This record gives sequence, structure tokens and C-alpha cells, in this order.
Amino acid sequence: MRIGILGTGVVGRTIADGFARTGHDVMIGTRDVEALMARPEPDERGTSSFASWHAEHAAIDVGTFANTGEHAELLVNSTLGVASVDALAAAGSADADGRIVIDTSNPLDFSAGFPPSLFVGNTDSLAEQLQRAFPNARLVKAWNTMTAALMTDPSALADGDHTIPICGNNEDAKARVTELLRGFGWEDVLDIGDLTGARAMEAYVTLWVRLYSAAGSPMVNTKVVR
Amino acid sequence: MRIGILGTGVVGRTIADGFARTGHDVMIGTRDVEALMARPEPDERGTSSFASWHAEHAAIDVGTFANTGEHAELLVNSTLGVASVDALAAAGSADADGRIVIDTSNPLDFSAGFPPSLFVGNTDSLAEQLQRAFPNARLVKAWNTMTAALMTDPSALADGDHTIPICGNNEDAKARVTELLRGFGWEDVLDIGDLTGARAMEAYVTLWVRLYSAAGSPMVNTKVVR
Repeated sequence: MRIGILGTGVVGRTIADGFARTGHDVMIGTRDVEALMARPEPDERGTSSFASWHAEHAAIDVGTFANTGEHAELLVNSTLGVASVDALAAAGSADADGRIVIDTSNPLDFSAGFPPSLFVGNTDSLAEQLQRAFPNARLVKAWNTMTAALMTDPSALADGDHTIPICGNNEDAKARVTELLRGFGWEDVLDIGDLTGARAMEAYVTLWVRLYSAAGSPMVNTKVVR
Repeated sequence: MRIGILGTGVVGRTIADGFARTGHDVMIGTRDVEALMARPEPDERGTSSFASWHAEHAAIDVGTFANTGEHAELLVNSTLGVASVDALAAAGSADADGRIVIDTSNPLDFSAGFPPSLFVGNTDSLAEQLQRAFPNARLVKAWNTMTAALMTDPSALADGDHTIPICGNNEDAKARVTELLRGFGWEDVLDIGDLTGARAMEAYVTLWVRLYSAAGSPMVNTKVVR
């Protein structure tokens, strides 16, 4: 399948690598490819440069958001929450043809430091904002509730015995995403309903950062026991 | 220990019963005892009347909020979120002497139906509102993240293999509450830090109602896997 990943941070890289390792044809997109490739290493958060990461992941194509939108049968939004509407608009195709868009973003507001608050929530969500901006896209919220290292490798924690929630308005799109997640080893994919569930999934991230602090490691996720 | 429970709904009754069964001296408090005892059975939500519940739990004293505040060495706030400040004010003693107050309430807003939104959140919480109103109380947020049937009986689900988060500003109070929770069988009491964590614990409830819907049962809780 031709997968397009929007966003070249740790989340985008991890998901791109996950899809590439499992036989998909992956392009990762950014606003300005030249600027991305020229970024020094490491960045202010200690992440290795994109260029050095890409040297070890040469099978993954790199393009602009527009190139990535043209490439993709399925898009993944892994840009920062504040940049997501613009990135999907630049990708162009998100709204074209009922394309599946997996939204991993979170509306995090770090303006008052750590832990972050949310710039949208309670009676709306970033996912719903995106869905309203691109009404023909079949948006599925997923992967926003955990650290990147678990996204395509759930077995890295407790043999994978934990849960990934998803939500969205289109049943077929959720079924397809569930199948892709199972391919990565997710045994407990929990569909919590329509896209208004993103209000809860995004708000959960404010708890996750506390769990991360309490556990002393980002390798923490919740198992929904029922 | 002399325990005072504010609120006579299912949560208050369950916690009162839990403490009474484990040898504590419990009073459950309401605004108007006569009106409470006169309520018909069952109420609009199918809950049995307080009078019939109390007939089977006669060891638990019933009093006004003020009586309960006088009785209590430790207070539990199990009133509705919208009524919590007034209930604790009526109890009087919450602010008297660094008393431990376990806050189980949630700022649920059902004005737009189900699922509820929150009437305070993100950069504030109901627990913090209560702490500001009663600055000498040693507030511990706990028990707000699950259905009443699990609160004092975690083994009713998955042999108790799931998590109860707590938070608060006073380490001694959290240690005491942790001990009490362990007495009910909670093996994984997770301290997520100071009372600002209540923003996340209260917001989590919006996810919990979705998990409840997805699971088709309120007997659902999360295990924090780390």
C-alpha cells in the first residue's frame, strides 16, 4: 500500500519505518525538503538529524507535503497539533476521495511549560477540527495516546498486553486501520466510537504525561481491563 | 477511624459500606436527613431509596453535612461535582485542622446529554477549586476514575489487576489514603503527583464513559502498564 506520512519528527519517522518494514511503499513529507535535510544534528531535544536518520532508512522516500499527498493511498498526520490543518491542506489529497487519514496529533499547549494543557478540548477536539476542514477525508484517530517507541512495536512493553483506542466516523476506515494495527502486533484495538471520542483520547494525553512522570519512563501505556 | 462520607448516592453508599465493613466508625451525611429518608423508591435512575439501603446498613450513622463534619477524622466528598463546594462548606470541619479529604467527585456537565463534558478542566480542576476554597484541608483526589462497584472491591474485576491513580499536595495524606486503599485490596495505587494531576484524572473520566460504552459494562478500569 502507498503510505504518506506527514511530519518528520520522532512519531513520523517511527510510523514511516514501521510501514516500510512491513512491506509498504512509504513517503515521508515535510514543508521544505531542503531545509529539513540541512538541519544540524542533534536538534534542541537531542533527536538525531533527519538526514542521518534517512541515511539509514533510504527505502523511505522524502517529499513535500504535496508530493506525499500525491503518493498516498493512506495518509498519516504526525505533525505538531498546531501545524496539522496547514499540513493536511498542503498535502491536498486528504479531502479528495474519502482517503483514510490516521490522525496521531495532539493539541498540546506548552506555553505555560510542562505539563502541557490543550489548545482545544472538552466540547471539541483537534481531530474534529481536521474533519471539519477536510469533510471528505475518512479520519481515524489513533496512536496519539502513547510514546512513539510503542506505536508500531507494542511488544516492546509487557509483551504487547495493553490497549490502543481508536475512533472515527467511518466504520470501513476503522476496520482497515484496525487491520493495519494488528499487523504491527496490536492485539487489543479498542474502537471507542465516533470522532467525538477524540475529545477523550486527546484529553487522556494530559494523564499520560503524568503517568510518564510517575513511572519515570515514557514506556507506559494503559490496558483497558474489562 | 471515624469516617465521614458526604453524599448519599451510590458512590457515597458504597464507600460508607466499605469503611464500615472494615471496622471503621462511619457517618454518611446529607443536606436534609428527613427529606433523604422520605425519598420514594426507586429514584429516577433505578437506585433503591436511601431508607431501604440504610435499613440493611444500620451500623452506618446518618446525619447532616454538619453532623458528618463533626464526626469525621477523615472526610470523603462523594457529592455531585456541582454541589461539592457547598457540601464541604456545610460540613464545616474540612478546613479546620488539616483534615484529610478524599475527593471522589467529577465536574460532569450533562447539559448537552450523554456523553458529558466537564464544567471545569484543562488549566484547573474541581479538586483544585475545592482546595482553594478549603486551603487547610489535605485534599487527595481518588476513586473518581471508576464505577462505584470497584471502589472498595477491586477484586470484582480481573482479580484486582488494575490501577487506581491518586494525587494531592500533601505526602502524608497520600500515604494514609494509599494505606486505606490497600486495605480494600488495591495493589496498584499510583501517585501521579500534586493536585494539578486532578485536571488529568477528571478529564480521564470523559474517556472512561467511552470505554464503558465500548465495553458494554461499567465494570471497566485501566491498568497502567509500565
